[in-house]
This record gives sequence, structure tokens and C-alpha cells, in this order.
Amino acid sequence: MSLDAVLSRIDADLPKATERLMELLRIPSISTDPEYKENCNRAAEWLVADLQSLGIPAEKRPTPGHPMVVGHIDGDGPHILFYGHYDVQPVDPLELWDRDPFDPEIQDTDTGKVIRGRGASDDKGQLMTFVEACRAWKHENGSLPCKITFFFEGEEESGSPSLVPFMKEHADELKADLALICDTGLFGEGMPGIITMLRGLLGEELTITGPEKDLHSGMYGGIAMNPIRVLSKIIASLHDETGRCTVPGFYDGVPDLPEDMLNQWNNLGFDPKEFLGAVGLSEPAGEQSHTPLEMIWSRPTCEVNGIWGGYTGSGFKTVLPSKASAKISFRLVGQQDPFKIRESFRDYVQSMLPADCTVEFKGHGNSQASQMETDDPAFEAARVALSEEWPQPAAYIGCGGSIPIAGYFKTILGMDSMLIGFGKDDDQIHSPNEKYDLNSFHKGIRSWARVLDALTKA
Amino acid sequence: MSLDAVLSRIDADLPKATERLMELLRIPSISTDPEYKENCNRAAEWLVADLQSLGIPAEKRPTPGHPMVVGHIDGDGPHILFYGHYDVQPVDPLELWDRDPFDPEIQDTDTGKVIRGRGASDDKGQLMTFVEACRAWKHENGSLPCKITFFFEGEEESGSPSLVPFMKEHADELKADLALICDTGLFGEGMPGIITMLRGLLGEELTITGPEKDLHSGMYGGIAMNPIRVLSKIIASLHDETGRCTVPGFYDGVPDLPEDMLNQWNNLGFDPKEFLGAVGLSEPAGEQSHTPLEMIWSRPTCEVNGIWGGYTGSGFKTVLPSKASAKISFRLVGQQDPFKIRESFRDYVQSMLPADCTVEFKGHGNSQASQMETDDPAFEAARVALSEEWPQPAAYIGCGGSIPIAGYFKTILGMDSMLIGFGKDDDQIHSPNEKYDLNSFHKGIRSWARVLDALTKA
Repeated sequence: MSLDAVLSRIDADLPKATERLMELLRIPSISTDPEYKENCNRAAEWLVADLQSLGIPAEKRPTPGHPMVVGHIDGDGPHILFYGHYDVQPVDPLELWDRDPFDPEIQDTDTGKVIRGRGASDDKGQLMTFVEACRAWKHENGSLPCKITFFFEGEEESGSPSLVPFMKEHADELKADLALICDTGLFGEGMPGIITMLRGLLGEELTITGPEKDLHSGMYGGIAMNPIRVLSKIIASLHDETGRCTVPGFYDGVPDLPEDMLNQWNNLGFDPKEFLGAVGLSEPAGEQSHTPLEMIWSRPTCEVNGIWGGYTGSGFKTVLPSKASAKISFRLVGQQDPFKIRESFRDYVQSMLPADCTVEFKGHGNSQASQMETDDPAFEAARVALSEEWPQPAAYIGCGGSIPIAGYFKTILGMDSMLIGFGKDDDQIHSPNEKYDLNSFHKGIRSWARVLDALTKA
Repeated sequence: MSLDAVLSRIDADLPKATERLMELLRIPSISTDPEYKENCNRAAEWLVADLQSLGIPAEKRPTPGHPMVVGHIDGDGPHILFYGHYDVQPVDPLELWDRDPFDPEIQDTDTGKVIRGRGASDDKGQLMTFVEACRAWKHENGSLPCKITFFFEGEEESGSPSLVPFMKEHADELKADLALICDTGLFGEGMPGIITMLRGLLGEELTITGPEKDLHSGMYGGIAMNPIRVLSKIIASLHDETGRCTVPGFYDGVPDLPEDMLNQWNNLGFDPKEFLGAVGLSEPAGEQSHTPLEMIWSRPTCEVNGIWGGYTGSGFKTVLPSKASAKISFRLVGQQDPFKIRESFRDYVQSMLPADCTVEFKGHGNSQASQMETDDPAFEAARVALSEEWPQPAAYIGCGGSIPIAGYFKTILGMDSMLIGFGKDDDQIHSPNEKYDLNSFHKGIRSWARVLDALTKA
């Protein structure tokens, strides 16, 4: 076989590959909202059909939530599992989108062509880079380069409730030598990264109740407990003046970053002014005793993702509300235990409740942080292969986001994960006007062809 | 003429009077929501037709917002203006209503029959007590007891933006000897009150912007400013540990309550445990250095009426939001100046903003507090007349709500207001399942017949 022929085939097939991605992007597979359930199912069916068109016996596998897509193809060499997710984030606030989020198009921008639409980058576009690499390989060579298991889920953006049970039930079927995951970004312009450190995630929702019903703020204002004030005070108390989280025991299991890793990161040329400037900010607002890269890669966080209570419509309503709620998430690192932190957080909130208030909690998923073993020669082989495709050599980096699947692959299936992705900081994932650079899509497909080639030889 | 005949007529006509009120309640005249504009217009037209059926040449008068209803009928004796409002509060959260808020019905409860529906108490039911008293009077005597101006507005629940301009433009037409306002409550079971003290209101809305767009909390969490955290901290800072508002200069113009008034209030038999217990609370949560009645009648407040930001739907979204907003209202007393407090509040919020955050403000109406001159003999005549209708003698009381119209009548038209109403603490005005006791409606109509009779003789 010839890698060059595969790469040429990828170049020639790019317009059709892009059209296939557009088809998938047109399916509004928002997993967190029950109204979009059938659309998640349609996205899974689309992927099954696409894999089958490559001669891969794939099928939709039911779960209590959205279905999994699983396909196996036999081959020589190592057994690789490729993971991606076909579900996407909600699109609100819809009014900030320049177009229908589910009517994607190729747009010309100052920095080149982009594919605009929800899921273009996270994760449909990234998922399809691997599928298209396989398609080109199959076309040129008649078969795939090694034994591959395709494993796509549809609940990544809503806490993956079905993932662990499914993996446990089908552990024998899913176990491979190495997992490839495409749900991350380039480190910098023209510089890919292989992520070796991922933060975990703990999601919590709390609702504080004061009066048993909404009250008139004239009649009761001044004498009745206001749950919005109580909730605000609790949120204000979750961090101290230096930006540290005050939940008791929160930093148990948080390691200091090894000196050599800190030095390597300090030499990556990361410019916090540029990173923050791209979103209208200027100053790192996290723990003041740590560097900006530590803040987003190796330090834990506590953030409020949503808050609501009382009257939020247009105009004014002089209500003193019965309830106020917030969604709060914690990014976890090192050996932080999500279950212990959940318990400590709930106890801490309870301890701050004044008289006449009650609180209810709802959990929204949890996962520990992950750390990869980079002495596996496959890592260095992949890093060299990526470096051949891109202008800048690939680096081992951290990631602030939570990709719990990597942890599950390790703990449930006993395999390491290689996290390689081609997203960019300005892709606006989870935000209005999400996009994926056409260049990321194109070179992403080429990158996987090179990595597959390297892994079969490693 | 005979007052007894009028009262008998009222008793006999109660079923029909109730059916007329139900008709008005079926019109969803929510003034704060532009979607209900035509329904506000319909409510005004209904009232015009009803007044015309009494031989009163009434008409709908346009404003930039919802129309006024004005009608004049000549007569001997004093010139009275009666004020009420036909608009109602929004109905959310709709799921907490036991029935369609705009499909009212008479319900049997443990404490007697009630009229259930939005506006039953605030203010359609109360407004109609006066209209029905006039109807009975006209029926028995062929004319009304004195010269009366009817003045109904449709923007009371949304800050009355058109009221002051309209009153200024039509001051000569609207000026009377005394205003009667029916938009308040009984003081206690079977005990009416005449309100001599009303709190003012200042409404503010603020939106804090951090990042210029919503961010992924994994990618940016730990380094980017979170506007929900900033807003929570600001709200938490608006009160000190003793419950006092911390806005600089907030207490300028707040008088100490005179000793004799405090003594009178202490003898009213007000039970804070019962008042708070009715809404699931137990402890007065306001300024700890003041009595419960002071907290709701004579002390100013700062309350949060609504808060929102980030993802508030079902499930979870790991967003780090660009914006967070709150609606905040201040109840004002004595000589507190709403414009100075607005300025001080906005400066105070600005002073608490961290780097990379901006704030935008929106004003939602403002009014000073009001104090009535109770040495006018009409007050005592009305108090005695009310005492004849109800089991308990009527009292001069305070009111925590803001009825700015009373202040406008004084400053723009130079006339005092007599605030008499028949609502009850458990009417759930501004809340789900609003009701008006059928007894309040019936004895309210009878009360106005007695008061009109007394005023023509005072």
C-alpha cells in the first residue's frame, strides 16, 4: 500500500467528504433536550448507514437513552478503537446565531473557509475526519490497515448516563489495544497536540426554597426570606479572595505540577493575553498563585453554568420568589474524588442555609481526571506522524475539558487513549456560530491516515 | 334616599355582580407582556361599556401604552375620584395554578367561598366593588350620591409609564376633592383598614457581561471571568449581617417611626408567626433592629425579584456564560429620593465590578413614599362608616406595597387619597391561584355604599 495514494485520494475526495459532513450536521441531535430524541436516533442511523457503505458491519445499539453506534472490521496489526460522539450542545441563545444552527454552510472568512453550524467542530466534524480517512484507505487498498472498532455515542453532551453500563456490559466486545479519540483541539496555529492530561467533571444542580410560594414583594418584602439572596450569598462564598474554591477538602488529591512539565508548558509560547483577548477578556481570573496554563489544564475549578429564579421575562414583576436554582460544575484533576467532593459540596451548602430555607440537589454526572502513559511507543509514533502533516511539530499537552470516556477506557477496558483533535480555540463550540475550519477537516482526515499508517508499523 | 335600601339591593344583586366580575376576569389583561396588548384594550372596552350601562358617559382614552378609562357623572356634594386598575400580573409559573388563571370560578374552601383567578383580588375584584356600589345606588335612587370621576388605568402592574403624563395633561379634568383607591387589604379578619402610609418603589435591572460570548467551561473554566459569580457577589454585598442595605446613602430621608404610631401598631395584635407561617416561614428576615410591622410598613427594602444567566433548561450544559442579569427593587419610605438611590445603586455596583466586566442598567419605574393627612374629617367619617359594616372597628394602618398613584394624586392634582381595600393576606396576589373572598367582594360593595353615604354627609 502507499500512504501517498491515500493522501491524494483524500485531497480529491474533499468536496464529497464535506457534503457528507453537511448531511450529518443537518440532523439536530441535541442530546440533553428530550424534544430532540428522535433526531439523535436519526443521527445514529445516518452513521450506521455510512459505516455500512464502507463495508463495515455496523449497527445501532439500544440504551435507556440515545443509541450507541458500534461497528467492527477485522484486519492485521494492532486492534484500534475509535471513539466520537454524534450528539451536540443546545443552541440557545438562538438570536445570537447568524444563521439556522442546523442549516450548515461553507463560509469564507478572513482566516480561510469554515464549516458553520452546530456540531461542525464538536464533534461531528472531528468524528468524520477518522471515518473519511478510513474511506480513502479502503478505496485505495481495498481494506482497512488494521482491526478497527468504531464506537460512537449520543449522550456525550448530557453526561453520558448510558455509557458506563454499556461499556461494562460489552467490555469483551469493545476492548482493543488502544483507543483513538477525536474530540479535542490543535494546540496552536498549525500545531497539533496529543493530550496526556484531562480534567474530570462533577455537575450539580441546587434549588433553594424559602417561602412555600411566590410572594408580593410589597406585602412581604423586608420580612420574608428571599431565596435568590440566599443562593447569591452561597455562590459568592464558593471562592475566596485569591480565587481558591472554599468547599472543604476540595484540594485533597490535587497534585503539584512536576517541575519538568511546568517548564515544558512555560516553553509552549502560550499567550494568555491573546487567548483571553479572543473572547473580550484580558486578565486570568483564576487562582492567582498559578500560571494561566495551569488554570486551564492542571488546576481544579468551580464554575456556575446557569442560574435562575423569580421573574425573568420582559418588564418587571414585584415578586419575592419561592425558589432559586443554579447549575454548578467542578473540573477535577489528579486524584480528586468526585463522590467525596459532591458530598462535601452538599454539606457545605447545607451549612450555609439560613433559617426557613431548604435545598434540593440533583447530580449531573461525574468523572475523575485522566493521565495517559506516554511511554507506550505508539504515542511517539503518532506524534511523529502528526508532525509530518502539520507546519509545527506535535506536542504533548493538557486539556481543561472533561472527556470522561478516556478515564472509562482505562478503568473499564484497561486500555490507554490517544486524544488527537483538530478544533481551534475560536471554533465557538457550545456557543452560537460554532464552526470548524475546512483546513482542520481536510488536514484532520490526512492526519488520521498518517497516524493509522504509523500505528500499524509501531 | 335610604342607605338600607341600597344595602338590600346589593345583597339581592350579588349573584349578577359576581357574574359581571367573572366576565372581566376572563380577559387576560397582562400589561407587562406586549403579547397581551389587545387583551388590555378589551378590558378597557368592557369597563367603558359597563359604566355606560350605569348612564355614566365614560370613554377609553388613548396613551402611548394601554388606554385609560375615564368617566364623569355630575351630582351634589363633594367631588370624588375613584381609581382602580384593570391590568393584572403575569401568571407564571403556570404549572403551579390549579386551573386556567383566566377561567375563573367560585370555589368552596374551608374559610368560605372564593373567586379564583388572576386579577380576582388585584385589582379587578376590588375595582368592581365600587362600581357595583354605584350600580345599586343608581338603581335605588335614580342618580349617584355625589359628583364622581371614574379613573381606571391599565399599566399599574408594569410601572404605569403613561400615568403621570396623562394626569399632567388632564389635570383640570381629573382634579377632585378626594380620591378613593381600592387596591389594598383588610388589616385582619373582619377588620378593615384605611392606609395612611405607603412605600414607594424603585425598579432596576442590571446585566453584567464578562466574556463577549458564551464559552466552554472546560476550555476557559479557571481562567475566564464568570459573570454569574460576579453578579452573585454583588447581590450578596447589598445587605450587611444585620439585614441593612449597604447602598451608600440608602437611609437618607428614612424617618424614625413616631413613638405613638409605634405604640398603636404594637397594639394591633399583629402576629408575625402567623403572618409568616401562612407562607411556610417562621422568622422575620429583615432588619434585626426593627419590629416585624416596621419591616413591612415603615422600613425600606432591597429585594431581588428575578435572576438569570447561562443554561437554565433541563439537563446540563458546561457553558461559561457571557452575561448574567437580575431585577432588583427597592421599597422606599419617608423622604427617600428614588433618583438619588438609583444613582447611588448604579455607582455602587460599578465600584464592585472586577476587571473585564461591564454592566448595563435599565430602569423599571420609580415613586416616592406617601403619607396621608388624616385630620381631614372625611377620613374619620369613612372610618366610622366602615366600622358599621365589619365585625371589628376600622384602623389607620401602613402598607408595604407601593401604590404610587396616591403620591401622584397629591403632587400632580393636589388631593388626598383614601386607600380602602378588602383583600386578604392569603389572596395570593402576584402568585399562582390568586383568589378574592366572596365575602370581601360582597362586604366591599356594601362598604363603599356606606362610605359614599358618609362622605356626602361629612
